[in-house]
Amino acid sequence: MTVEELTVGLIGAGRIGRLHAHHLTTRIPRARLLVVADASAVAAEACARDYCVPRFCSDYREVLADPQIAAVLICSPTSTHAQLIEEAAHAGKHIFCEKPLALDLAAIDRALAAVAQAGVKLQTGFNRRFDTNFRRVRQAVEQGEIGLPLMLHITSRDPAPPPVAYLQVSGGLFLDMTIHDFDMARFLLGSEVEEVFALAHSLNEPEIASAGDVAHAAVMLRFTSGAIATISNSRRASYGYDQRVELFGSEGSIAIDNAYPNTAIVSDRRGVRRDLPLYFFMERYAESFAAELQAFVQAVLDDRPVPVSGFDGRVPVAIALAAQRSLHEHRPVSLREVA
Amino acid sequence: MTVEELTVGLIGAGRIGRLHAHHLTTRIPRARLLVVADASAVAAEACARDYCVPRFCSDYREVLADPQIAAVLICSPTSTHAQLIEEAAHAGKHIFCEKPLALDLAAIDRALAAVAQAGVKLQTGFNRRFDTNFRRVRQAVEQGEIGLPLMLHITSRDPAPPPVAYLQVSGGLFLDMTIHDFDMARFLLGSEVEEVFALAHSLNEPEIASAGDVAHAAVMLRFTSGAIATISNSRRASYGYDQRVELFGSEGSIAIDNAYPNTAIVSDRRGVRRDLPLYFFMERYAESFAAELQAFVQAVLDDRPVPVSGFDGRVPVAIALAAQRSLHEHRPVSLREVA
Amino acid sequence: MTVEELTVGLIGAGRIGRLHAHHLTTRIPRARLLVVADASAVAAEACARDYCVPRFCSDYREVLADPQIAAVLICSPTSTHAQLIEEAAHAGKHIFCEKPLALDLAAIDRALAAVAQAGVKLQTGFNRRFDTNFRRVRQAVEQGEIGLPLMLHITSRDPAPPPVAYLQVSGGLFLDMTIHDFDMARFLLGSEVEEVFALAHSLNEPEIASAGDVAHAAVMLRFTSGAIATISNSRRASYGYDQRVELFGSEGSIAIDNAYPNTAIVSDRRGVRRDLPLYFFMERYAESFAAELQAFVQAVLDDRPVPVSGFDGRVPVAIALAAQRSLHEHRPVSLREVA
Amino acid sequence: MTVEELTVGLIGAGRIGRLHAHHLTTRIPRARLLVVADASAVAAEACARDYCVPRFCSDYREVLADPQIAAVLICSPTSTHAQLIEEAAHAGKHIFCEKPLALDLAAIDRALAAVAQAGVKLQTGFNRRFDTNFRRVRQAVEQGEIGLPLMLHITSRDPAPPPVAYLQVSGGLFLDMTIHDFDMARFLLGSEVEEVFALAHSLNEPEIASAGDVAHAAVMLRFTSGAIATISNSRRASYGYDQRVELFGSEGSIAIDNAYPNTAIVSDRRGVRRDLPLYFFMERYAESFAAELQAFVQAVLDDRPVPVSGFDGRVPVAIALAAQRSLHEHRPVSLREVA
Repeated sequence: MTVEELTVGLIGAGRIGRLHAHHLTTRIPRARLLVVADASAVAAEACARDYCVPRFCSDYREVLADPQIAAVLICSPTSTHAQLIEEAAHAGKHIFCEKPLALDLAAIDRALAAVAQAGVKLQTGFNRRFDTNFRRVRQAVEQGEIGLPLMLHITSRDPAPPPVAYLQVSGGLFLDMTIHDFDMARFLLGSEVEEVFALAHSLNEPEIASAGDVAHAAVMLRFTSGAIATISNSRRASYGYDQRVELFGSEGSIAIDNAYPNTAIVSDRRGVRRDLPLYFFMERYAESFAAELQAFVQAVLDDRPVPVSGFDGRVPVAIALAAQRSLHEHRPVSLREVA
Repeated sequence: MTVEELTVGLIGAGRIGRLHAHHLTTRIPRARLLVVADASAVAAEACARDYCVPRFCSDYREVLADPQIAAVLICSPTSTHAQLIEEAAHAGKHIFCEKPLALDLAAIDRALAAVAQAGVKLQTGFNRRFDTNFRRVRQAVEQGEIGLPLMLHITSRDPAPPPVAYLQVSGGLFLDMTIHDFDMARFLLGSEVEEVFALAHSLNEPEIASAGDVAHAAVMLRFTSGAIATISNSRRASYGYDQRVELFGSEGSIAIDNAYPNTAIVSDRRGVRRDLPLYFFMERYAESFAAELQAFVQAVLDDRPVPVSGFDGRVPVAIALAAQRSLHEHRPVSLREVA
Repeated sequence: MTVEELTVGLIGAGRIGRLHAHHLTTRIPRARLLVVADASAVAAEACARDYCVPRFCSDYREVLADPQIAAVLICSPTSTHAQLIEEAAHAGKHIFCEKPLALDLAAIDRALAAVAQAGVKLQTGFNRRFDTNFRRVRQAVEQGEIGLPLMLHITSRDPAPPPVAYLQVSGGLFLDMTIHDFDMARFLLGSEVEEVFALAHSLNEPEIASAGDVAHAAVMLRFTSGAIATISNSRRASYGYDQRVELFGSEGSIAIDNAYPNTAIVSDRRGVRRDLPLYFFMERYAESFAAELQAFVQAVLDDRPVPVSGFDGRVPVAIALAAQRSLHEHRPVSLREVA
Repeated sequence: MTVEELTVGLIGAGRIGRLHAHHLTTRIPRARLLVVADASAVAAEACARDYCVPRFCSDYREVLADPQIAAVLICSPTSTHAQLIEEAAHAGKHIFCEKPLALDLAAIDRALAAVAQAGVKLQTGFNRRFDTNFRRVRQAVEQGEIGLPLMLHITSRDPAPPPVAYLQVSGGLFLDMTIHDFDMARFLLGSEVEEVFALAHSLNEPEIASAGDVAHAAVMLRFTSGAIATISNSRRASYGYDQRVELFGSEGSIAIDNAYPNTAIVSDRRGVRRDLPLYFFMERYAESFAAELQAFVQAVLDDRPVPVSGFDGRVPVAIALAAQRSLHEHRPVSLREVA
């Protein structure tokens, strides 16, 4: 049965939580955001005020206990995700959870089991799947526009590394950043990863190295379909956010470029140039964040499968763990070894 | 003095009126849309319901008589614009009016006089000035990035002509379509038109010709600064909406391309290709419509000049009339002859 | 009847004459360059030595009198072209002549009459028709790829003006520079010009103005087919040689970009940029110069029509004269008025 | 001491030998091609006739024995290269040899020893280094335009696989095709490979698989500088020859695109498209073949080091052997294991 409107509670009123609050209240008529919870009551109140949300609280358990709330958005720190999913599932709430679901597979598996037992829906926040450019690549695969997918190359670079304090708890490059690319590779190829090989270095980035992480990495993935993907990552691209893919198939190739703030080309005596691409994910992926939320709301209201499942949230974590092991043991690592 | 919130009444609930209602209610927190008027009560009611506007009516005079309303948006048919501006000014309302203000200069002059007398603000709806691409060109001029502007070329083509019934009352290509380009040329060059020369034909478009209009036109403009602009128009571009400019200056050139739904490039045995540009103005200029409204609301609330004045609404009509005369009399026509 | 090899004499060993000598001796096996004539014996000797030409002389009449020579290339100053064509025709030589054939139509008509009477071939050196990019546009027209041609826009800018001394004898912008664009418009549209309207100015270029010429011009052409062309010229583009066209037709549009020395795109913190286009005609049109010569040699040897006739050499001069009159009399000028 | 002219003998008059003959005789004035040798006297004669070479023979030893010949070009089948280098060195000839020098390192080492002992010059035919696009990337590295090189991605795909008969003797993808990319990676990064990891498959290409080769491969290289390169190869790209690189550095990135036959963009109701890139290496790399030969002739005449040494010819063979071993043993292979 289809209900009219989805009542939502938001848990976590940080940057991404506020973004979702904005989208829920302005762009998704079928959702109603009723309450914002954040361990910081100040943050919860500010978010509620800015987006005209009726209530706020500092204890997420109030949200879970509220029978009026049908779904929760989990936007709290990663370390709390799995536990919150479990509790929300037990409370019978549908769940949208930011990525990554957790940094270890055992915690994820407990959360997924709770979700399955409760029969609620869980969508993982891999927003890039909803980006118009990446979707166009997926469409090319689905419609056979490029034939059988053979080789995929993903370029994924941030404009600047996060603070060292964040780096130290981020889980490392593969779990924090490449995880999006692992999801994208699965999404675009429609196949599962069998094996991972990774190389990395921190040339020119002593701070990142001393935080125990790597700054630049290349990862090679072998899929069950036989296709191969290569990923090129960096924590620091001087020219800004760099998010491109090229998918080569038996009948053709499809490549997407970065998104730019305008289409202007300036020619002068020094050269022919354009402005830098959109600086970071809040600009580049703005639309995709709204679209993923809309898809979640529709899936719950229409009782259809969510487009990015809990399983889709688990697998990239496994790939990231395999990539870490490959880097440390300097050999290709089968996904079976970690999963 | 700065007031907190602008109370708005919408007159005309057609396609563009509904678009403004959507933007006012979701993207412009400092505005409150209180009432929708449309000669069709059904249209007014639908618009009010869809965008959660408290009231609707079929007589715009109710809006003008409402002391709670500080500003009106005039989105009714062109033939009513000038009269409505006059009445709204007399009622002391600030005014945002869609282009063109009218098809003849006398009516515009009466409206502008009423506005001046009442001391209200009037903004003309030349939304393209707020498009990120055109703004980038203007910025290049303002910052001296391309030196002294010397030659401008505007390409402006619609994907398909409007129905013949519309063509017959549209005022013709120059008043209906090129008027945007006349405004753009003034905006980008920051100079006034002195003289106009126009050629046109309707090759392959017998329907347009029999409606008394032309399908394809080229216009040359000479500006007081000395700069020259050429405009290339068409009512029908098989590949969709085509909206580009190139501005050549003493130190360089800036050109903008069309806007595309994605950045994907597909290579296969037939060629290297991308999808068609955004099909029409509702997609291409979506953001600019929201931005012009935001600018209007801010200008009124902060009591600053509107970014596109009533005078800016008058001049392109004069240029269009000169272009018509040039076409009919087959000679360059000075703006002084019509203005 | 087809003969084996074309024996050629070169008249004029300046920059363009030397270029043709180079192409004749290295890239056109069916031609044999036997003699170089130049009023400067030093220049003739240097050219002969550099390109291994057996003989040289300072009097072109020796070339015309030589029964071994079947064809001449006229690369001397423009003021001598018409007279040389007449004499070469009387001597029974086939003729390749650089553009323009002359700066006045009477001289051209005498030359063409002599050619017709002698039954020799005359090819005009409009090399751009042989450029791979422009040829691709023409091909699109011929194959119906863009339907019926409706509107043409030509951008044609030099990197820097020639010396004032040259400007004063060049015949002015239209005869010296736009003449290529007039030819290109006829070539691409496959139609004849009926009428011309021109505007021009010399903003920022007092030297050009004081030489009696204009620095920047816009020209509008109406063709017998109904199509309209606009041309945007400049003597000085800060970013280098700018040679582009866009042809808009009923079924589509085709546009060509400039030619670049490489395809590299550099992205850094200042922007995304590429190197400047090829600087001037010797680089940009290198291949087209070889191709036009090859076409001439083949046409003579196979006794087929030359691809760019004497008539093709005459018409652009007439258009240029009409453009001059339009500029001076500030009105559209019919080609019949000058031709 | 600098001599005036380099006398050259050509050994091997196949496709690439004929190309060199063409360039030597038309574009390199300081070289004189005196004799062509080919095991097929018919091929030798045809080549000599077509390019006006005075003599031909079917036994390359005549060339080596000729005291008038200062340098030889070895364009015979790969299996003969090493032996011919040895003999040519013993005969005191300077040597230009096509790639690969041989398929095994022992043979190469014997050849290089003979070259060293004789004190002659040996240049390896890695022509792509002379391509204007790749050179531009190298220039960016040398001039510090992109800072410290961090990550390199090479895309290298042929339009169609060679015949099975050729595949069986080619040495396999890595020695036959990727060898160019191994050279390019060394050239662009200015560093040596330490380690290789390779994955490959033959999806959709049963013929290639049954010939014992692979159709599509991804290779990862770790350099002594710390930089990492990824290579994406295919024997069959439906859209033609695909030869691109992107080099990411600490201060920026430089990427080169394919080379196209023209710059035309066609827009019609189906999309916005351009013609396919230049089809294969003879078109794409035409200029680079002439440039490498010119560099060889100059290096010999001016007694300076050749730009691509015998060592440069050896290393990519070692990398290819390491890649083969990596593929077979499914692990990263250090170059020290094979070299």
